[in-house]
Amino acid sequence: MLNLGGTTVKRPFKSIDLEGRFCFYHDVVNSNSQFVTKFERNNNMSALNLTFPDGAVKVFPDGTKPIEVAQSISKSLAKKSVSAKLNDAYVGMNDILPESGNFQLITTSDTEALSLLRHATSHLLAQALKRMPKFANMHFGVGPFIDNGFYYDTDNGAGNQVSVEDFPEIEAMMHKIVKEDLPIISRQITRAEALEMFAADPYKLALITDLPEDEILTIAIQGDHIELDKGGLVPSTGWIKHFKLTSVAGAYWRGKSSNPMMQRIYGISEWKQADVDAEVTRREEAKERDHRTIGRDLDLFFTSQEVGSGLPVWLPNGATIRRQVERYITDKELANGYQHVYTPVLSNLNLYKTSGHWDHYREDMFPPMDMGDGEFLELRPMNCPSHIMVFKHKPRSYRELPIRIAELGMMHRYEKSGALTGLSRVREMTLNDGHTFVEPEKIEEEFKSILTMMMAVYRDFNITDYRFRLSYRDPKNTEKYFDDDEMWEKSQAQLKSAMDDLKLDYYEAEGEAAFYGPKLDVQTKTALGNEETMSTIQLDFLLPERFDLTYIGADGQDNHRPVMLHRGIVGTMERFTAYLIEMYKGAFPTWLSPLQVQIIPVNLGAHGEYADGVQKKLQAVGLRANVETKEAKMGYLIREAQTNKIPYTLVLGDSEVDAQTVTVRKYGEEKTQTMSFIDFQMAILADVARYSRPTETHE
Amino acid sequence: MLNLGGTTVKRPFKSIDLEGRFCFYHDVVNSNSQFVTKFERNNNMSALNLTFPDGAVKVFPDGTKPIEVAQSISKSLAKKSVSAKLNDAYVGMNDILPESGNFQLITTSDTEALSLLRHATSHLLAQALKRMPKFANMHFGVGPFIDNGFYYDTDNGAGNQVSVEDFPEIEAMMHKIVKEDLPIISRQITRAEALEMFAADPYKLALITDLPEDEILTIAIQGDHIELDKGGLVPSTGWIKHFKLTSVAGAYWRGKSSNPMMQRIYGISEWKQADVDAEVTRREEAKERDHRTIGRDLDLFFTSQEVGSGLPVWLPNGATIRRQVERYITDKELANGYQHVYTPVLSNLNLYKTSGHWDHYREDMFPPMDMGDGEFLELRPMNCPSHIMVFKHKPRSYRELPIRIAELGMMHRYEKSGALTGLSRVREMTLNDGHTFVEPEKIEEEFKSILTMMMAVYRDFNITDYRFRLSYRDPKNTEKYFDDDEMWEKSQAQLKSAMDDLKLDYYEAEGEAAFYGPKLDVQTKTALGNEETMSTIQLDFLLPERFDLTYIGADGQDNHRPVMLHRGIVGTMERFTAYLIEMYKGAFPTWLSPLQVQIIPVNLGAHGEYADGVQKKLQAVGLRANVETKEAKMGYLIREAQTNKIPYTLVLGDSEVDAQTVTVRKYGEEKTQTMSFIDFQMAILADVARYSRPTETHE
Repeated sequence: MLNLGGTTVKRPFKSIDLEGRFCFYHDVVNSNSQFVTKFERNNNMSALNLTFPDGAVKVFPDGTKPIEVAQSISKSLAKKSVSAKLNDAYVGMNDILPESGNFQLITTSDTEALSLLRHATSHLLAQALKRMPKFANMHFGVGPFIDNGFYYDTDNGAGNQVSVEDFPEIEAMMHKIVKEDLPIISRQITRAEALEMFAADPYKLALITDLPEDEILTIAIQGDHIELDKGGLVPSTGWIKHFKLTSVAGAYWRGKSSNPMMQRIYGISEWKQADVDAEVTRREEAKERDHRTIGRDLDLFFTSQEVGSGLPVWLPNGATIRRQVERYITDKELANGYQHVYTPVLSNLNLYKTSGHWDHYREDMFPPMDMGDGEFLELRPMNCPSHIMVFKHKPRSYRELPIRIAELGMMHRYEKSGALTGLSRVREMTLNDGHTFVEPEKIEEEFKSILTMMMAVYRDFNITDYRFRLSYRDPKNTEKYFDDDEMWEKSQAQLKSAMDDLKLDYYEAEGEAAFYGPKLDVQTKTALGNEETMSTIQLDFLLPERFDLTYIGADGQDNHRPVMLHRGIVGTMERFTAYLIEMYKGAFPTWLSPLQVQIIPVNLGAHGEYADGVQKKLQAVGLRANVETKEAKMGYLIREAQTNKIPYTLVLGDSEVDAQTVTVRKYGEEKTQTMSFIDFQMAILADVARYSRPTETHE
Repeated sequence: MLNLGGTTVKRPFKSIDLEGRFCFYHDVVNSNSQFVTKFERNNNMSALNLTFPDGAVKVFPDGTKPIEVAQSISKSLAKKSVSAKLNDAYVGMNDILPESGNFQLITTSDTEALSLLRHATSHLLAQALKRMPKFANMHFGVGPFIDNGFYYDTDNGAGNQVSVEDFPEIEAMMHKIVKEDLPIISRQITRAEALEMFAADPYKLALITDLPEDEILTIAIQGDHIELDKGGLVPSTGWIKHFKLTSVAGAYWRGKSSNPMMQRIYGISEWKQADVDAEVTRREEAKERDHRTIGRDLDLFFTSQEVGSGLPVWLPNGATIRRQVERYITDKELANGYQHVYTPVLSNLNLYKTSGHWDHYREDMFPPMDMGDGEFLELRPMNCPSHIMVFKHKPRSYRELPIRIAELGMMHRYEKSGALTGLSRVREMTLNDGHTFVEPEKIEEEFKSILTMMMAVYRDFNITDYRFRLSYRDPKNTEKYFDDDEMWEKSQAQLKSAMDDLKLDYYEAEGEAAFYGPKLDVQTKTALGNEETMSTIQLDFLLPERFDLTYIGADGQDNHRPVMLHRGIVGTMERFTAYLIEMYKGAFPTWLSPLQVQIIPVNLGAHGEYADGVQKKLQAVGLRANVETKEAKMGYLIREAQTNKIPYTLVLGDSEVDAQTVTVRKYGEEKTQTMSFIDFQMAILADVARYSRPTETHE
């Protein structure tokens, strides 16, 4: 028999963040429902001194609850108070304040209140599920709030899983419990009590077992339902009104694929219905733009556990886009004085010991491989050491500088599987990487040269939605950075002056520099709203030291130290393609489009030969054209070409064959235009050339 | 005290191939020289029946030596008999024939005699070294014959190493021993005796220790020198007349870098001096052609332990060649109906368990990497499973077949460091890989289509020196192969019929097929004379089974099994580039050449501007041109352009500026030609176009 009654453990009030470790409990509640009514006011008679955010101190009798404090100030404050904080730990509105200290009420106006609401909604979801006969035997994992919502991990056994068809019924049950307006109150129990209480649920037992033996846990009680969770959420279930279940997905218990697969039920919860509706709309739009959705619809790429987590396979359509981007940026760089190289993906581990990656970045690196003869090979986490080897393989003179080494450099990152997403977060990536080695006095000139090329590339891709961030060292913590004050001051001023000269807007971020030097980042946003760095130019004073790089100066001395600039223009092929997919919403400009021209003969027998001829002529000038051979209605075939976002659709019938013309429909337009084949060919070649200008020089 | 005297162990005569395990011995000889004189004729009186290659049987007294057999036939035969074979085991001319059986004399006309001579020369080298005071304390490893020569691994201690400067003195000592014409005779000893005999040499002890305890070993004795080696080399040191020491290189004991580094002394040995001279010339030429030599001279690539063994770095010049090859073959394949993809270099280990690579190829694979959540990732050893995943990611119909998936697919091979060579034997390679999935009845058609494209590629690269090998299963061991007799018979016939139809020369090799199907290999030779497979087309009935690949047939059933064809046209970028370097001797055709046009203004001040204009115009049409800005004599600059094997050198002076012409000198030609710039541009573009015809279709 558990003793939960009056035993609250006092001072220090241990508000352990149990999220991710505890879940709720029900069987004990059913068999021991007297617990719920037994919670009573503590009889300790000493006074409670609460210090408010404005500095005022008020005295309350011991045993006071936050709701009583709120009511003592004003009725309206009590009405909008969601939770309270005592000495930075949450205390539920219905729970006894355990000690004196700094006190603060959290109201619906506070940002963090929304997280509490969402968290409470996950508990409400669990309570509703347990009340429904078909889910009465469900086991539960964790149920946290997340950005824009919440989820709960559930396991209802193999044969009787939750599906989206169940959502209306579950939501109805949730609304019923909301109407019951059950107060939510917290109590504390020992680890031993918790083990007995949650004996029926293997997931919860696993979580509790991991805790120290003397741990004191908090449970939250709402009517017939108990959660093993820290207290301090909303005052009662009546507060949770505007929510919606959105999806259900598989999720391994504790994120490990060797563990059982659970069902993760996702939902939205807001203070107002309008916010729920807005979030639903935003998600639908984001999903339409999400590169994973478009990637699947247009057959661009796929990921699968069978191939390996975080290791996307580029299908022919996606590979065509990538190949265009790769050739474009390579040619652009060659035209701008870069020397392209191929350096190995595997390298001697010592390279990364010398560079410092092994010391500071090891947890993101794959394990080294023993070659059995004293050599250890490592999948490279970065390309810089490889390019340094290219610089270093022969003596260099100031006459050769700047030396610009570039590569489509593949590298690997040891990411946890939970963090992996489509093309944008992967374990293997190919970076449009470049390193230029310059004389220190030429930093600004080189920086400008890179920036100018970068802007030209953005124009070619029509990228306009980005922000420049100049990242400096933190002037208050200069000891955190590479030690050369003069170098820092000078180079930061050089970057700023270059940005000003080029009349570019930017914002400055102190403390955002790398350890080894200041940098410029170009920040963009994904469809899902995450900020990402697309391009970067980073000064590096450190690696030239670590690898003892030198060049022969005009003075004939061979001890001059170059500065390195790390730069990426289009970033990794993976992330950049994800960005392009979302930016173009799958409707790629002609030069990037996997298929550029879809040719539809009105009648295969009568017009197929002409169609084949048109295709061959287009292919001969390097265009990607296809003849539709499917037998279907013309309207259907045209709609399908639009769905596949093909830039040009040609319809060829009797009149086109007779006059040697083509009837052209551009993607997204209703009108068609009939023109001579030559005029069409010139138009589409001009269209392609407008975007792709690789031989233009920007130096 | 050792007992070597009359104890020869009889029947069966155990001719263990000790090469690579034993080396010679000397100290015991010095202290026990009575052994050498003690060897005596065995007194066993029974008769010896020898069956000659022509079937004749002759009877000899027991204790007969091969030299006596030869003399009994003819004096001239005895003069040219190098060794003998009894029941397929070598017996030295001076050794007693231990049993009756099939007998054969090896004469200087026999190919294998040359290997015996070379082997004997390595012993002669060791004997000479031991007689020289500066090498008196030398230890010895192994001393085998190799293709075109021999070597001996030696260890003379750190401070007193052998250098090429010592070679004349060593060769003189060798010639002295040749003049002594010491007979070479063999005897057998036990392992225990060998251990005592070779106690002073750590390398030999290590070798002997590895043998079974009851092993009987053979030693070869020539005067003051004993080798632990199987007998049957030349009759006496007088037979070794025409030899030359060629080089000395470091070699780890037993090929392991954790073992001591020894000195490997290489030499040539032939029956005639003319052959020695020819070999020396051949080697000099091969070295000039060796892709490692040219790679260094033309700054194409480098390898270093610092970067990692077997992991070449492609410098800008080499990378340009590779990029041209990659774009060429990709475009060629796209024009021929291939769909290019990018698939990950790392994959879930399960892929290679399913494919069978893990079971049969594991020792060539890098160790799997534990992702901590039950997933193991593996650096792929082959691309086939990745392309199978592309085929498999959606249902396929017979209408889509053949599906041709291609990729520049990087893969890794766990090679021992000793086997690594330049670009031709590496640990990381990028294969021009392709897999086509066809209906079984379309094998011949697809095979022809691949072959036709292959021949077109060879024409474009001007590759003419190769042989086709059709590899079938061994008809006597059909159980060693994938079990489907009809499939084998049919498909082998299809390949043969395709070759005949295309009127291609080929040779057939029974037993050379892969386990999973017959194949066609294209064999070429490297500068060093090694045969390599450049291209291959392999039928595969197995992987479609293992991965359960199916397509929907014309009958609407979805259980049809496709056949896979693995094919590589230009092979790996590494090996193919090595091949091209050697084939072109570094003088690349214009379309591949890293730099295509070197522009030399007679006077930088007066003609530099015109030169820059010419360069820009050439770059604008995609050509690689450079303006020479070094101040040096015109003759020197022109010679340097020739040394760097640049296809076109333009010299621009007053008359060229005035007339807007260029004076052109083609690589390898003495004469120059002055022409208008436009004529030159058209000529060089035609030159480039002649080789590179990627959009031509060969289906």
